[in-house]
Amino acid sequence: MTPRMRNQPAVCANNMLPPDADALLAARYGNAAPKTPAAWSPLIDQLLAHRSVRHYLPDPVSDEQLSAIMAAAQSASTSSNLQTWSAVAVRDASVRAALSECTGGQAHVREAPLQLVWLVDLARLAHIAQEADMPHDALDYMEMFLVGAVDAALAAQNAVLAAQSLGLAACYIGALRNQPEQVSALLGLPPQVFAVFGMTLGTEDTQGNTPAAIKPRLPQNVVLHHERYTCVDQQMAGVQAYNQAMAHFYATQNMAVRGTWAVHSAKRIKDALALTGRDRLIQALQALGFKLK
Amino acid sequence: MTPRMRNQPAVCANNMLPPDADALLAARYGNAAPKTPAAWSPLIDQLLAHRSVRHYLPDPVSDEQLSAIMAAAQSASTSSNLQTWSAVAVRDASVRAALSECTGGQAHVREAPLQLVWLVDLARLAHIAQEADMPHDALDYMEMFLVGAVDAALAAQNAVLAAQSLGLAACYIGALRNQPEQVSALLGLPPQVFAVFGMTLGTEDTQGNTPAAIKPRLPQNVVLHHERYTCVDQQMAGVQAYNQAMAHFYATQNMAVRGTWAVHSAKRIKDALALTGRDRLIQALQALGFKLK
Repeated sequence: MTPRMRNQPAVCANNMLPPDADALLAARYGNAAPKTPAAWSPLIDQLLAHRSVRHYLPDPVSDEQLSAIMAAAQSASTSSNLQTWSAVAVRDASVRAALSECTGGQAHVREAPLQLVWLVDLARLAHIAQEADMPHDALDYMEMFLVGAVDAALAAQNAVLAAQSLGLAACYIGALRNQPEQVSALLGLPPQVFAVFGMTLGTEDTQGNTPAAIKPRLPQNVVLHHERYTCVDQQMAGVQAYNQAMAHFYATQNMAVRGTWAVHSAKRIKDALALTGRDRLIQALQALGFKLK
Repeated sequence: MTPRMRNQPAVCANNMLPPDADALLAARYGNAAPKTPAAWSPLIDQLLAHRSVRHYLPDPVSDEQLSAIMAAAQSASTSSNLQTWSAVAVRDASVRAALSECTGGQAHVREAPLQLVWLVDLARLAHIAQEADMPHDALDYMEMFLVGAVDAALAAQNAVLAAQSLGLAACYIGALRNQPEQVSALLGLPPQVFAVFGMTLGTEDTQGNTPAAIKPRLPQNVVLHHERYTCVDQQMAGVQAYNQAMAHFYATQNMAVRGTWAVHSAKRIKDALALTGRDRLIQALQALGFKLK
């Protein structure tokens, strides 16, 4: 284990000392935490403090909060300024319950007061082209689906950060892709619009629940390559160190996980069945109007 | 045009007054700016101030800065904690020049001191499964490519924000997808790894250049839907208002854009040729080891 120098304060971009950069890096990397960089900022503190929260109080997210969150989301980059995404804010408890069913019954999808569903949206551009009496053949290509998915993800990440800065908690819901056609019907989505993921938003309920923790990640030198991609063989020492960090994390969280992170992850990718319905994603997309040429 | 109440200060989550929330919203939405929400935060100020910068000084991005940026990137959510992404930091001027060629000669790709290339990375998981003597058939599905693209985008957005908080500037480079096989060869990527987009990082060069501006976005009620998707027809009034906001923006930036934002955007999606090589993305992905079942 690398000793961490808690008495050596990090220098902040704006000359403020971030007292907890060391602690945040230790939580994020476990025994593989890098030395606290000389470059740091209060915003980076907030990014490192991210936690995915799955227990919510019923307290609503206000329209004022949602407006600020959406302004942040729209401020993210978007490819060629085409803005190929939309979001649906679902507060109706019966629709939240129906969306939860689509995810295989995730309780936090039902219980969080707001579900923000993020959409790849090519329908708006199709309509704009039609109104201008122009063709829109490029929308039929895989590229434009990917542009929409990346656009939606960049916007969503800004939304998560904005929400957290307002004291709210969030969790991405990839399981909305388990049943894409049902989600589409529930939200009245037109062709060429796809719910790429959901997001629970609300106030964390810590009563009777272990508060969500900062989860460790792979050592930096496993995911960051210099000049050329580091051969996967050479990444495995870092993966071994990470298995240990995650074993420690599982123990502190009282999580019953069989085997290492590596084995646990391998199980999630072993076959089509492990994709909980998402093995038919490409068929679902075609049914929803994406030609993916 | 909606009058904006500059004398009505916004209430901030932590009771600080953000003096420029009004100005940021006016820049981001033009004549369709919403009333400044009662919920706001200094972090939201930073998100709204985002600009894509295309002129860079040669000053390097330090390893310390890069380490802080990567810690922020890795702190973003990742589907099932599988961490299906990597990044390659390219500082070598000859490789930056070669990458620039792949984008059709974008000058800022050549000139920015650091190019961070964001990768969908399924090779690491494949190797982990092989080492555990387990199959990894799920990696052959479209779902896992999408997971990697979204994972990479969430991480990249954190990286942009962290870099900006350190005084650096950034720009996403989607044009790396114009020539995927060439980019892959330049970076030594193994099968099942794909450079989904690049990112220039460095210090903005304002000498002799118009500083990058905050670009207006569509009105909130065009992209945010409540309970169910708003019919595209009903979005068109907002698109008309946005055309005006963008006409004003083009004029203030001395940008020669023919026609409205709507017409300009329609041209970008009119046919396969408008995709500047990316119409063959699905073939390129298959050549790079993604089966996309």
